[in-house]
Formats: sequence, structure tokens, C-alpha cells
Amino acid sequence: MIGIDWGTTAFRAYRLDDRGAVLDSLDRQAGILAIPPGGFPAALGEAIGPWLAAGETRVLLCGMVGSRQGWQEAPYLPCPAGPAEIAAAVVPLAFEGAACFLVPGLSARDAGGVPDVMRGEETKLVGLLADLGTAEALACLPGTHSKWARLAAGRVAGFATQFTGETRAVLLQHSILGRLAEPGPVSEAAFRRGLRRSREAGGLLHHLFGTRALGLMGDLAATETASYLSGLLIGHEVQAVLAEGAPTGPIHLAGSETLAQAYAMAFNEFGLAHRRQPDDIVARGLALIAETIPWPRP
Amino acid sequence: MIGIDWGTTAFRAYRLDDRGAVLDSLDRQAGILAIPPGGFPAALGEAIGPWLAAGETRVLLCGMVGSRQGWQEAPYLPCPAGPAEIAAAVVPLAFEGAACFLVPGLSARDAGGVPDVMRGEETKLVGLLADLGTAEALACLPGTHSKWARLAAGRVAGFATQFTGETRAVLLQHSILGRLAEPGPVSEAAFRRGLRRSREAGGLLHHLFGTRALGLMGDLAATETASYLSGLLIGHEVQAVLAEGAPTGPIHLAGSETLAQAYAMAFNEFGLAHRRQPDDIVARGLALIAETIPWPRP
Repeated sequence: MIGIDWGTTAFRAYRLDDRGAVLDSLDRQAGILAIPPGGFPAALGEAIGPWLAAGETRVLLCGMVGSRQGWQEAPYLPCPAGPAEIAAAVVPLAFEGAACFLVPGLSARDAGGVPDVMRGEETKLVGLLADLGTAEALACLPGTHSKWARLAAGRVAGFATQFTGETRAVLLQHSILGRLAEPGPVSEAAFRRGLRRSREAGGLLHHLFGTRALGLMGDLAATETASYLSGLLIGHEVQAVLAEGAPTGPIHLAGSETLAQAYAMAFNEFGLAHRRQPDDIVARGLALIAETIPWPRP
Repeated sequence: MIGIDWGTTAFRAYRLDDRGAVLDSLDRQAGILAIPPGGFPAALGEAIGPWLAAGETRVLLCGMVGSRQGWQEAPYLPCPAGPAEIAAAVVPLAFEGAACFLVPGLSARDAGGVPDVMRGEETKLVGLLADLGTAEALACLPGTHSKWARLAAGRVAGFATQFTGETRAVLLQHSILGRLAEPGPVSEAAFRRGLRRSREAGGLLHHLFGTRALGLMGDLAATETASYLSGLLIGHEVQAVLAEGAPTGPIHLAGSETLAQAYAMAFNEFGLAHRRQPDDIVARGLALIAETIPWPRP
């Protein structure tokens, strides 16, 4: 079968064998924002045409392709939800040449009753749950909008999103903090300094201005600003999650190499055990969900 | 004498009598960013020419005009500092037609040793100190970068800046939260909802994403997004300041009408007493500092 993670800015496709092993894969900077209205079937056909020609008949998609801005909207499934509920809620898509389904996103409400949503990460969590069984665990999926999920009894019990990556990007691109910053290599020392700063009093909004004042006073190099800001924001993110309860086991971490390394450094700095998960855990989740879908006979 | 608050985006000038009363004033959108290199003397002469022609011979300036990007840099004076130290540190400026001095900014370090700076607000605080005498007090001067100052023994003991206004602006103009927002009247209900949200668990970065999720789920109108975000950010700012110790008396609040109203609402929501100070308290501070400067004989 073919499993696809089609997000806002990226398209990742996997050709998987019956046991879920990756036979081949595609990775393109062709997220849903790059697709013209009505252009999804053609874009998909173009991308996976060779695999269809080679005999594949089943396609399962997850990610923002199932959002209002995507191919078709797949309703959010409320938490707690596990692999069975997710597989039962897939949405069929009209596509010539293969049977095609969309994985639904998940929704949750936090202690304050405020909603939260994910699309794509639920499939990674299905992949992770296959390893964890029914154990309780905390998963961290860093990204533009980082997702933290509590797993229990073989399902996603709940989750919370942190706006860290996007906040960092707009501050660096559009605020006075960015005007101060100069390009430079990632500085681990500045990143760790930002992490430690996040544990001090004053709050995030004060710490942000402090980044500018450190620069003004010559206490932080312009080339270190971006790394310091990353440490500061990721530090605040991790502090906020921990304030709601320390994890009972290692934090399961899955994300791109750069982000996963940064979060791993934060966990080490704060004395938190973690376990790295492969970034293509989404392929495993897609394969597992695909196993229980009632595919039409070819 | 003539007192001037020349900031990044605004120019405010006051003609003051011997007792500090405002005889006349100017308010222009001609901050230092609008002045070409070397253009400060000409811009000042043009603005206050009529007052000089009428016999004024003394000019005192405060604000970002004393920064590296301004007319001339006036070094920061470290806290604690009061009216006497500030007046003793004014910097003379070469200007045809009047004796001219710059008020220095202030610097401080927080508990973590991270520096902080202000320019212009120190002059407002001098105005405020004249009322307070040697009593301990907390002052809040909201703005793009809000300043919170602790006053004691007739001086500014220390202060902390919160990056609230600029964070709000870049999020609304450049993040996905802004794409969700539609223009609308200020909503007091949405603002208060944001304030209350700031007291819940999860942290600011989670609450920011929640703003989007509320919109997606139809729980927050697009026209209410900006007001909700203001409440959320101001709420986090006030929480962070209070976490370092509750004020012993009313919070002294001085800022533009719109911002002061918003902060007053936040203080009321959180059960904090406050006292509004006039927005032109800067004129009073300029007059008080001017009293003790050794002006040259005309």
C-alpha cells in the first residue's frame, strides 16, 4: 500500500509492503499550500503514478490534506481515541486508479475547556502506540506547532499544542529581536543559555525583551540571538508542560533531526529522560491503520 | 522652558512655565525613525521655532532621541537612580538658539543578572516620584515594550520590561493567528476572556495556539481574535509581574488612553488596586529635572 503524510509545506509518500516495511519513499516541498484549487487528484497521481503502475491499489493519507484548506475535510475525532477508533473514522476520497482514504485528525479539550486539534500527528502516535502497548507515556512531537500527547490504555488520552516554532519564526522575521540577529551557525552554548534563562523569574514576555537588552549591552552576540531565542522558547514550552505533572517514564520524542536534537538537549538540561523515535514513525502508523480499513476489492 | 519626549514613532513637545504648568504642546507622528541622518537640529528648530522666537532659551529632551539611533547617545544610568542622579547625568547637545540637554536612560539587572533598559520612561517616573515621595510603589507604564518599575526611597529601585505590545503586533500581523482575525470593534468580553485564560494551566505558548483552535471550532469569532489575544498577553504579563511579589499599594498606571484602559481592566479582573496617572506626566518629569540642571546663562 501507499501511505502519505501531506502537510502544509511538505509531501511525504511511502510505498510499504504487507508488513509495513518501507520499500520506497518520496519527500517533496509540495505541501497543500502549493496545490491549486481542485488540483489534489492530479498532484497525487503525478507523484505516485509509478507505484500505481507497479500494482499498488491502496492509498492512505494523513495530515493537513484532510483540513478545510486541503483536498477534503475529515472531521476531528475527539480524544480519547486509539488506532481502532481512528481506522473506523477514515474518510473515502474520490481518486482514479486506487482506493483512497483520509485519516481523521484528533481534537481534545484542556483543563480549561479550550479545544485543541492535530492532523498528521495522530498517525505518528498510532505508530508509537504499537511499541508502547497500554503503558502510560508522554510523547513530544516538535514542529511549527509542537504537540504533546498523553498516551494511556493504548489510546491518545489527550494532547496540547505549543505555538513555539511559529512564535520563534515571527519574532525573528518581524520583531526588533530579528533586527538585532545576524545569521550564524547554531550555537549550543547560546541555546543552553536560553534554556536556563527560561527557568528564571519574570515570564516569557520579559525574557523576550531581555534578549534585546543582552544584545544592546554586548552580553549576547548578534549571531547567537537565534539560538538563544530557540532555547528560551523551547525552555518555556517544556516548563509549561512539566508544570502540569512530571512524566512517569521517558518522554517519547519524534521530529525532524534538527528539532529533535534541540528538544533532546532541553530534556537533558532539565534532567528529563527521553527516547528518540524514528522520524518516519508516520509510515508505521499509516501501515497499522491501513491494516484494519475495509478496503474495497480491487 | 521646553520639554520634549522624542520617541521611536512620536514627537511630543511641551512649553512649560516656571512652575511646570503646560502652556502649549505639540504632538506629531515624527519619531526618530522619521529623521534623516544629521537632521535632528533642523527638525527640532522647525518644531519649536515659534516658542524660541517667543523667548524660550532652555530645551530638555528625553526618550529614544538619546539612543544610538537618535541625535546623540546618552549613556544608561544604572538603578537605583532618582531625580538627582538623573539630573546630574544629563548630556549637553549642540543646538543653535537654545541651551539643550538630553535626559539619560536607565539600566537595571534582574534577579538572573540579565540587563534591562528604558529611555523616556525614567522621566515619567520622576514625575510620579514627586507625588509619591519616599513611599514604596509599583508603577506600570504600558507601551510597545511595557515597563514595570519598583519605586522606593524617592528613587527608581529597579524595573523590568515586558515585550507584550510588540509580541501582539507581530502575531496579529504575521502569524496564523492574524490570518484568522478579522477587523472589528474592541470586544471587552473577549478581552476579559483572554485575561481569565491567562490564569489557566498550559503556558503562554499553549494559550496562543488555543486562540487558533477556538476560532477553528467556532468558539471565538474572527472579529474577537485581536481583543482575546490582547487579554491573553496582558494577562500573562500581569501574572508574571505578580509572581515576583504582590504590590503593597495601588499600581500606578500611566499610558495612552487605550492601553491604560486595557491594563486597568486587567487589574480589576485580578483584584488589584490601581491609580491612573495623567499621560502627560512626562511633562512634569521634564520640568522637575530641568529645575536642577546648571543651565548656562543666556
